[in-house]
Amino acid sequence: MVAKSQLKLIKKLHQKKYRNENKLFFVEGIKVITDLLASGLKPFQLLATEEKIESFPQGSQVDKVAANDLKTISALKNPNGYFGVFHHPKNLGIDFEDWILALDAVQDPGNLGTIIRLCDWFGIAHLVCSNDTVDCFNPKVVQATMGSIARVNIHYLDLSNFLDDIDVPVLGAFMNGNSVYNESFRKPGVLLMGNEANGISTTLEALISKKISIPQFGNQTTESLNVAMATGILLNEIRRI
Amino acid sequence: MVAKSQLKLIKKLHQKKYRNENKLFFVEGIKVITDLLASGLKPFQLLATEEKIESFPQGSQVDKVAANDLKTISALKNPNGYFGVFHHPKNLGIDFEDWILALDAVQDPGNLGTIIRLCDWFGIAHLVCSNDTVDCFNPKVVQATMGSIARVNIHYLDLSNFLDDIDVPVLGAFMNGNSVYNESFRKPGVLLMGNEANGISTTLEALISKKISIPQFGNQTTESLNVAMATGILLNEIRRI
Repeated sequence: MVAKSQLKLIKKLHQKKYRNENKLFFVEGIKVITDLLASGLKPFQLLATEEKIESFPQGSQVDKVAANDLKTISALKNPNGYFGVFHHPKNLGIDFEDWILALDAVQDPGNLGTIIRLCDWFGIAHLVCSNDTVDCFNPKVVQATMGSIARVNIHYLDLSNFLDDIDVPVLGAFMNGNSVYNESFRKPGVLLMGNEANGISTTLEALISKKISIPQFGNQTTESLNVAMATGILLNEIRRI
Repeated sequence: MVAKSQLKLIKKLHQKKYRNENKLFFVEGIKVITDLLASGLKPFQLLATEEKIESFPQGSQVDKVAANDLKTISALKNPNGYFGVFHHPKNLGIDFEDWILALDAVQDPGNLGTIIRLCDWFGIAHLVCSNDTVDCFNPKVVQATMGSIARVNIHYLDLSNFLDDIDVPVLGAFMNGNSVYNESFRKPGVLLMGNEANGISTTLEALISKKISIPQFGNQTTESLNVAMATGILLNEIRRI
């Protein structure tokens, strides 16, 4: 059985501050835990309720947790019986030879999770996030990445300094930019996506080489595309060359 | 104040059967209601709590509803004070000159809502759904369309008969199809997307002219793209010509 002191530490991982201090995060569910293990991510502690413990891959060291204790550490309304605490993946240094995706203050955990999954699909190795982007180790983000969190290098930094320092073109997604259909996306470059409500901040706008847009064909009053959807369409454009 | 008998009718609109019998559906929130009114959709009844009634566009006929009564008809945990019952939009006959999007048993309301919004963005006038696709007037679908439900013609029909009868090419999205980067999407045509878990059924697979895929660049174990995301990327491919 897992010690109370251990549960107390794990409980603290709901907070970004403690996740960063301890370089740990947690996920729930056998599929995502197995996927992270298969991706080579180092487990700090694996927990399962008694009846679930056998579903773990052979050779995993899993501690038993009482259903009641699991409730106190889970981020889910109905815990599923599997809980994995992992060390943060080691980030490789940013590679400026390929496309890099950058996010300015993306706030919704589901959006960030989907975007990390898209980076994984389209082979974008480096995702650069402004410091005010939602934390990628937030349980909702991790859950939405479906294991891709282990395979994308995610960097939090001062985006304004970063964009100011680099030598590669920066394309920013705007409502009124040039049609992506007229662009040729030669690497290297940075694709910058903005906040859900406010788009790209004016500070960062000044550091952009070119504004691009996904053309709209329907009624002009249509809601703009969600940031995760727009990112998927633009990463596809980048890779189609 | 709205009559109890009226509330009883509205309450029934949570069920697909009654929505279809009465050709009515409901939405909640001032933004989406205003958007549907602006799109020319005919309101059956507009309701608001006393303090919210003034936010409606001038000239709208709005009935007052008590907060407690609103709770009994709302699909939201915390009703927002605005409730609109609308007549189903009138569908135009299917136009075979342009691209048509077809869905085989898409189940998730959020996915269908996003797909309807994508049709609106990319100017796809006709969305054809298998009879076992989630109902487009399901409150969660309507809410996710952000008003686009008024601007896309949505048809529920026997997809197998439909695809068998038509004369235009049918492209089906598969994991192992031809890369979309090698396709030229000349209209007319039908793009067929499959169920979230099972993809396109074998019955419909037999009626497809060509299988297409969005290439994957990352790790082979990556989860496949969500059906709404794949639809967005493919509609963008169709329109980029």
